[in-house]
Amino acid sequence: MSRESPDVVMEQSLDRPLARSSEIDQPSSEVVRFTDQPLVLDCGQSLSPFQVAYCTYGTLNADRSNAILVCHALTGDQYVASRNPVTGKPGWWEIMIGPGKPIDTDRFFVISANILGGCLGSTGPASLNPATGKPYGLDFPVITIGDMVKAQARLIDHLGIEQLFSVVGGSMGGMQVLEWAARYKHRVFTAIPIATAPWHSAQNIAFHEVGRQAVMADPDWVAGRYVDEGKVPRRGLAVARMAAHITYLSEEALERKFGRSLQNRVAKTFSFSADFQVESYLRHQGSTFVDRFDANSYLYITRAMDYFDLSADNGGKLANAFYGTRTRFCVVSFTSDWLYPTRESREIVQALNAVAANVSFVEIESDKGHDAFLLDEPELFATVRGFLGAAARKRGLPPAAGA
Amino acid sequence: MSRESPDVVMEQSLDRPLARSSEIDQPSSEVVRFTDQPLVLDCGQSLSPFQVAYCTYGTLNADRSNAILVCHALTGDQYVASRNPVTGKPGWWEIMIGPGKPIDTDRFFVISANILGGCLGSTGPASLNPATGKPYGLDFPVITIGDMVKAQARLIDHLGIEQLFSVVGGSMGGMQVLEWAARYKHRVFTAIPIATAPWHSAQNIAFHEVGRQAVMADPDWVAGRYVDEGKVPRRGLAVARMAAHITYLSEEALERKFGRSLQNRVAKTFSFSADFQVESYLRHQGSTFVDRFDANSYLYITRAMDYFDLSADNGGKLANAFYGTRTRFCVVSFTSDWLYPTRESREIVQALNAVAANVSFVEIESDKGHDAFLLDEPELFATVRGFLGAAARKRGLPPAAGA
Repeated sequence: MSRESPDVVMEQSLDRPLARSSEIDQPSSEVVRFTDQPLVLDCGQSLSPFQVAYCTYGTLNADRSNAILVCHALTGDQYVASRNPVTGKPGWWEIMIGPGKPIDTDRFFVISANILGGCLGSTGPASLNPATGKPYGLDFPVITIGDMVKAQARLIDHLGIEQLFSVVGGSMGGMQVLEWAARYKHRVFTAIPIATAPWHSAQNIAFHEVGRQAVMADPDWVAGRYVDEGKVPRRGLAVARMAAHITYLSEEALERKFGRSLQNRVAKTFSFSADFQVESYLRHQGSTFVDRFDANSYLYITRAMDYFDLSADNGGKLANAFYGTRTRFCVVSFTSDWLYPTRESREIVQALNAVAANVSFVEIESDKGHDAFLLDEPELFATVRGFLGAAARKRGLPPAAGA
Repeated sequence: MSRESPDVVMEQSLDRPLARSSEIDQPSSEVVRFTDQPLVLDCGQSLSPFQVAYCTYGTLNADRSNAILVCHALTGDQYVASRNPVTGKPGWWEIMIGPGKPIDTDRFFVISANILGGCLGSTGPASLNPATGKPYGLDFPVITIGDMVKAQARLIDHLGIEQLFSVVGGSMGGMQVLEWAARYKHRVFTAIPIATAPWHSAQNIAFHEVGRQAVMADPDWVAGRYVDEGKVPRRGLAVARMAAHITYLSEEALERKFGRSLQNRVAKTFSFSADFQVESYLRHQGSTFVDRFDANSYLYITRAMDYFDLSADNGGKLANAFYGTRTRFCVVSFTSDWLYPTRESREIVQALNAVAANVSFVEIESDKGHDAFLLDEPELFATVRGFLGAAARKRGLPPAAGA
């Protein structure tokens, strides 16, 4: 999702592509390497060894009952509340997570892991394939949201946590939340899926396919072997990001932010340069993205999202996914989110109702589109804070210091 | 807009790229070449000579009062009601135009011209630049919707028609309709702008910019000189078309047509092939488009649309554009069109109301998205037929034969 703003002055001193490549196998964050038991993937292949890069914030309590797993979206990472080593920017959800924040690290132990298939330290297509000593590229198996969650579960095992107090995430992070709740019912005390859906819609598959075709159309993609060849499919990945970025914003937000305003000029130039601010903004989004993200990771992760269908995976009935659940759910959507519209959240809520689950549902009035979940949305913060607080009392956690 | 369907068997015997290149300077349709008076463009440059390729249907009556100009959309052409020489398919609006059809060629004389900047016979970036003997490429001046309309006006002059009985068009065709009504008030008896807007929104500029960047990212674009170099930026143009195509359909239509159905397979392949029907459909749309359209034309026409702003062009007040108009307007929008939503048609209607113009406004209930204007929409046909019939009586035209 978007975090850059066109008026942010870039930290030019950072060599991002170099910083990024060093994060792939040896991340700045914590990392755990699993060498014993292979990860059996939904495609039938196994992955071994594999590693999961992660950050933690706050302190795990004595009975290990205050852990919250935060799942990231398509282009997110484990640096939810600390400086990102590639971009040099603050964590992507610092507005939500930290001391005294809605997800209060004075009270909760927050864990965030780079997803399987990612490019900031967890095993993905950019990682070295031990069989060849070269990056996996397209030899990396096609993974699913379920595979990402299975890898996270191995991390949670490693940390000695039996039950997570909560699993929280927006967008693709929300898909992981749902998958956690469905797959590991006894391990999830509460779940907060935000701005997400129980399956990927045809329109969303279509947008992803455009992005993938843009990447694969770039000759510098070299059938996925671009690292070997010393190339980067910059142009294709930038186009993919530009197209995706439009879907993260509402039309209202685009009108309010840019409208038809010209970019540093008083009149149209009658050329193909970026006359309009919205063009300049998109180009910026495209080019900065390329510096911080791996093109093959983009292909694999979008594919995993397209494959996500918690209904089909459960006999064609979404409610089956949650049968017998004791997890408390808080489902959140935003009125202007057209990528994961409220009606898709309602499908989740209806399925939960059908199995008599404990669920609250909040549709937040916002004109910021899908990106709202990353932005300053007081109602979102109040919802998360209130839900976690009530659940913590139920779970018998002590109140936050000073609360 | 879309006309191909994924289940239509392609006429493989046609060599489309070859057919297309022969249409650029010597179209199968009628063509008029203007060599005397240059076309002064909005950018300040002049174009001379230039030509306009066009088709006509029906018979011009003795007092030349029954002519209807049909304006085409971004990727349309003059073959509204006759076989397209490149694709071999029927005209793109045969459902609307013909004997006994809503735009009845037994009664009206229908004219349709390829737009300036197009690639099927009117002068555009693919045309030979007389100064160099090579295709213009990026030496072609950046044009506007106003320039397209000025070129059409020269054709209408050439045909000896003082006043058009109607100017009709959808999408970018609708922009031309509005421009005609604003620029040549006395020459337009009625105007039917369909599924259009008085200015291009930030979101629409954004989608166009993605398409242009996709084309320009293709190394085979060669800075616009691909014809000279014997290349075609196929991949970039296909990606541009794919992205645009999503915006022509509603999410409901995508769900209904494709949903998450797999394409000729029983299970996911865990690969990047087109598992889903919607992927296969989009790839098909992209690849067939490349055979029938010129990449530089795509850049120029999208730019002209982005520049369209009938309010800014008239002192920042849309109503000024129509001040003093005596044209009768019929404004049409579709409920599920998110590219040119109803609220943008309302802006047109409000501006017309502000100058006490004669205007009727119809929002048609449809779940087909923007493409609805090209499809079988009985309410659209009834609206156009009824409006033209009433206006024809007002204008004193004889009834249709047999009516």
